[in-house]
Amino acid sequence: MSMNNLGIVKRNIVRADKAAVDKLSRFGVATIHEAMGRVGLMKPYMRPIYSGAHIAGTAVTVLLHPGDNWMMHVVAEQLQPGDVVVAAITADNCDGFFGDLLATSFMARGARALIIDAGVRDVGELTKMGFPVWSKGISAKGTIKATLGSVNIPVVCAGAQVNPGDVVVADDDGVVIVPAAVAQQAADAAEAREANEGEKRAKLAAGVLGLDMYKMREPLEKAGLKYID
Amino acid sequence: MSMNNLGIVKRNIVRADKAAVDKLSRFGVATIHEAMGRVGLMKPYMRPIYSGAHIAGTAVTVLLHPGDNWMMHVVAEQLQPGDVVVAAITADNCDGFFGDLLATSFMARGARALIIDAGVRDVGELTKMGFPVWSKGISAKGTIKATLGSVNIPVVCAGAQVNPGDVVVADDDGVVIVPAAVAQQAADAAEAREANEGEKRAKLAAGVLGLDMYKMREPLEKAGLKYID
Amino acid sequence: MSMNNLGIVKRNIVRADKAAVDKLSRFGVATIHEAMGRVGLMKPYMRPIYSGAHIAGTAVTVLLHPGDNWMMHVVAEQLQPGDVVVAAITADNCDGFFGDLLATSFMARGARALIIDAGVRDVGELTKMGFPVWSKGISAKGTIKATLGSVNIPVVCAGAQVNPGDVVVADDDGVVIVPAAVAQQAADAAEAREANEGEKRAKLAAGVLGLDMYKMREPLEKAGLKYID
Amino acid sequence: MSMNNLGIVKRNIVRADKAAVDKLSRFGVATIHEAMGRVGLMKPYMRPIYSGAHIAGTAVTVLLHPGDNWMMHVVAEQLQPGDVVVAAITADNCDGFFGDLLATSFMARGARALIIDAGVRDVGELTKMGFPVWSKGISAKGTIKATLGSVNIPVVCAGAQVNPGDVVVADDDGVVIVPAAVAQQAADAAEAREANEGEKRAKLAAGVLGLDMYKMREPLEKAGLKYID
Amino acid sequence: MSMNNLGIVKRNIVRADKAAVDKLSRFGVATIHEAMGRVGLMKPYMRPIYSGAHIAGTAVTVLLHPGDNWMMHVVAEQLQPGDVVVAAITADNCDGFFGDLLATSFMARGARALIIDAGVRDVGELTKMGFPVWSKGISAKGTIKATLGSVNIPVVCAGAQVNPGDVVVADDDGVVIVPAAVAQQAADAAEAREANEGEKRAKLAAGVLGLDMYKMREPLEKAGLKYID
Amino acid sequence: MSMNNLGIVKRNIVRADKAAVDKLSRFGVATIHEAMGRVGLMKPYMRPIYSGAHIAGTAVTVLLHPGDNWMMHVVAEQLQPGDVVVAAITADNCDGFFGDLLATSFMARGARALIIDAGVRDVGELTKMGFPVWSKGISAKGTIKATLGSVNIPVVCAGAQVNPGDVVVADDDGVVIVPAAVAQQAADAAEAREANEGEKRAKLAAGVLGLDMYKMREPLEKAGLKYID
Repeated sequence: MSMNNLGIVKRNIVRADKAAVDKLSRFGVATIHEAMGRVGLMKPYMRPIYSGAHIAGTAVTVLLHPGDNWMMHVVAEQLQPGDVVVAAITADNCDGFFGDLLATSFMARGARALIIDAGVRDVGELTKMGFPVWSKGISAKGTIKATLGSVNIPVVCAGAQVNPGDVVVADDDGVVIVPAAVAQQAADAAEAREANEGEKRAKLAAGVLGLDMYKMREPLEKAGLKYID
Repeated sequence: MSMNNLGIVKRNIVRADKAAVDKLSRFGVATIHEAMGRVGLMKPYMRPIYSGAHIAGTAVTVLLHPGDNWMMHVVAEQLQPGDVVVAAITADNCDGFFGDLLATSFMARGARALIIDAGVRDVGELTKMGFPVWSKGISAKGTIKATLGSVNIPVVCAGAQVNPGDVVVADDDGVVIVPAAVAQQAADAAEAREANEGEKRAKLAAGVLGLDMYKMREPLEKAGLKYID
Repeated sequence: MSMNNLGIVKRNIVRADKAAVDKLSRFGVATIHEAMGRVGLMKPYMRPIYSGAHIAGTAVTVLLHPGDNWMMHVVAEQLQPGDVVVAAITADNCDGFFGDLLATSFMARGARALIIDAGVRDVGELTKMGFPVWSKGISAKGTIKATLGSVNIPVVCAGAQVNPGDVVVADDDGVVIVPAAVAQQAADAAEAREANEGEKRAKLAAGVLGLDMYKMREPLEKAGLKYID
Repeated sequence: MSMNNLGIVKRNIVRADKAAVDKLSRFGVATIHEAMGRVGLMKPYMRPIYSGAHIAGTAVTVLLHPGDNWMMHVVAEQLQPGDVVVAAITADNCDGFFGDLLATSFMARGARALIIDAGVRDVGELTKMGFPVWSKGISAKGTIKATLGSVNIPVVCAGAQVNPGDVVVADDDGVVIVPAAVAQQAADAAEAREANEGEKRAKLAAGVLGLDMYKMREPLEKAGLKYID
Repeated sequence: MSMNNLGIVKRNIVRADKAAVDKLSRFGVATIHEAMGRVGLMKPYMRPIYSGAHIAGTAVTVLLHPGDNWMMHVVAEQLQPGDVVVAAITADNCDGFFGDLLATSFMARGARALIIDAGVRDVGELTKMGFPVWSKGISAKGTIKATLGSVNIPVVCAGAQVNPGDVVVADDDGVVIVPAAVAQQAADAAEAREANEGEKRAKLAAGVLGLDMYKMREPLEKAGLKYID
Repeated sequence: MSMNNLGIVKRNIVRADKAAVDKLSRFGVATIHEAMGRVGLMKPYMRPIYSGAHIAGTAVTVLLHPGDNWMMHVVAEQLQPGDVVVAAITADNCDGFFGDLLATSFMARGARALIIDAGVRDVGELTKMGFPVWSKGISAKGTIKATLGSVNIPVVCAGAQVNPGDVVVADDDGVVIVPAAVAQQAADAAEAREANEGEKRAKLAAGVLGLDMYKMREPLEKAGLKYID
């Protein structure tokens, strides 16, 4: 048994069910995270390079070393249409691991987005290309190609555990990971959660208070809330 | 006398004079802050979720606990048209305390904006709705409803002291608080400050130097400035 | 010999060759930084106040003190068309050293941009004016005019050494400094670097892998990369 | 009415009752903060320059500007034995506003500590002198003496509202502010809180679980906690 | 299958082999991390509350919510002599989740340390008690007891994946996690790594250069290193 | 002319005059920084790994890449007794570039300290050895040996420009760089500055106010300071 997974590329991974991914793509990150029980979020420092993007796809993971993007070329070969690359780094580093050439390659392979716990560059060009990236930062700093990492091993990316094949959903609110085994269940729960949101929204828009709609007055009073003039 | 103001909702607050608020709404945050003597700013980490918003209104304050947005529903009931909710947290926390449903409710009550020293979510939707928020961050992380905070007590939000009824002005430069008692005075001072800005701008655009327009050459020389070739 | 360069304005500086600056303006920050051997970048916290700006010009430097923008008026007089102001601060400070009036003056003198390791304000107005600024942050906080700094001395700005007359290139990826003496060489190297990018991009878009295009399979195998199923 | 309190030194302030301060000095910051209902803490970035110090005293406040410590000399004159200087800054700044000479002066006036939302220097010397400082950071950067701030006005320091005369308690856990009007009440509450801590500690040390001592098993089960093997 | 592991306490976990833990306790965090192939480290923001502590033990994990330490009492019951509590939080939060009473309880159960991706308090007392904590920060801020988390589920703590029963080693350099399954292998590798360190140290102390001892001159020259005078 | 200085080791550098270094070693960082006109400081995030160290020496510089400490072995050979290694990194990175073995080598060569804009490890051992390090952080994360940097080229370290041979002075307040050419002048100025500090300290200790000793009352009144009761 190996003490680490470095220098390994796993070719055959089990991707989450396509129907579940498609269904999850209809919901926002906040909704899915709530539907799962408030778990699965990456840290909020992960921000999109342009606003308005909303994607869902299956995770292909890559583990990189600070200042070294060699494995980005290795991961490209493992991509299938509908995949999202999730890149973790073995230590904090904000160099620009990814730019327009790699994006061209990823897009050609059918990738939908990159999620990277580090920096990216060519963001003007990436925006024009419409290839969304959620990253820790933007930096023009170039990287080297000297050290082996791994592809399709479990990684921790921006505080979230990600296994190859998990569903990644990302929008302007951030990034959430849905384990492949519960993708359908999470999609159903998200749908259920949204089902009566329209009704709630209509009530609130009509001036009904959440205090009444959610029946909070009694528990608040019980907790000791006092109104004074 | 209570050692703290927790668990209290003050219903009747004295809001700053409407005319003063309206007048203040014509000026930018930087101008008002300067007109008041360079005071009243929140920390610069408070950023708008979309650019171009510029609001002024009267503060309705709420004190929340980390990860708990229960009082957001309580504060909704206290809102009047023209109010701005100012939300402080008892400790640093960037969870998403506010989203599109609460925004719907706040808008229905006539609120103009939310200023929150924490995170918000549904920012794509909030942008479409045109409900501006200045916050410490964006996060999809959900919150619970378990602990009492307070409404309309004095709070410290992003480093600024805010009393209920104070004027809040916010734009792309940040957020400034104008105490209700000096709102008219601040508005007048802001107006006076801007009065001759047009003239100054015209001169500078024509190539006149600030060195000459502000008569700085003599004090600079006196301070010891040396020109060398 | 002076122990410091405070209180000095150097009037005659040698600006980088105009043709080299023009040529450099055709390339992105990442490309130039790579072409120079991965040097010259400012820290990635330097961000543009609006996206899409891309400028190149000759550095006129200014050294400021925390909370004091007096020298901004002094530097204005030293500007020539095509210059970019590079402002360093003697200690970390994010106050708003620069706003629309100074921008009007800088534009009237022909300046192309401001690069400042501190805060700026009036960013809404600056965006409308089309005067780009790369800064550490945005803050409405006003500054005083009390202490001498210097103009056109060598400075360290956001981690980069900048000499007066050096070329500054900035875009959505950040800011790079090209020493005047190697400006032409860097421009040529950037051109060479981009020469075959189109071809590479076409190949990658057609599905060719970087693994093959860059002939990485052998060195990866030699390094010990293992493929598993 | 003034729009700000700049340029003012208030000489006569009402200090919290000495007996209450003395009693509060027997308790730690965490205990007092809990006893007050979990309020009054400064941000946790406020750290002591050496460990083991534990002080209580009456606040004499000073408002400073970034990079300017002029008012530190003004505040010295207002100090009485048992006071603690609480220094707020109008914007984020970590310069070294305070060193061994000022500490000598403060000690001669009977001050017990400095709490400053900025930097200090000469920390080696201050440690030898036994003059404790809680600060945002340590920096050798010198400051100027050019701009008026104020003494003994209400300030926001590290996120806490501080009025002149309030009680300041500080130890290795941080800094808490007790409003003068509730000082005795807070001291009594802290005493009550600690009264049965010895008994609790003995039980826990003997192996009794908090689950049983605090009778948490039922509420946990009610909340849905499941034990699995 | 559950979408999350919230509200669960796993009682029976497989702890790493005691002999392997004991052997690992002889080595520093840096050595073990290197021996494993440079993996397993927590983020470097995890710092000990006092210097000089060096512990190894088996992980008992707990997942907490921001501002809520209820599960700390639940985890106490699951502790066995030689365990180390590893506490993860569902979102960034630096409140003081742990103090001297809980430490008394943990010590009574035989716990060797706490590793927590949040804040602690009573650090003066904890230091006197000799109960080491590695944490993200120090804060007196109290927490509530309202929401269920979990005990002995896999968690991500400070960027590291931790499974119940894994080995935790911590010293002044930080914290490393050794999966239970490779504990013996890692201990052997650490031992092998240290075996010839004494010899190396003696050579270096005698003035032999790493350049020669590690035979780096040739690869450096090959890489293009140039010596100039 | 080269566009960068990468891959170069300069062997013969002109070190600052030994007598000047010795004299500077008698003064603290704050005093020297003031004596030079408030210039030369590194950023305050540079902290000693243990308190109480106070060193002065001549800078031998090294430029490293993120996650790569190869050049640390190259710089060791260039060290002479009395030198201080100043290590800059081409991008932000906090890995542990330096530990006890390298420290053994540096000490054997007569080096007095390491100043590094990155992380170090083995800090417990380094403390026992008495080899002081001022760094950006502490991290056990190991580095590789793959990319050429340079030795004895001008570098920017933690915001300060450092040329080989410059004087480095460091203590608990931070790190200051004195250019070799003004070392004697700075030492004399520091001496002059300290000359009458004893007298000042005695006066302040006797209760004389800085207001009177520095004759500040008149300028404060002129600036508009008002005393109220």
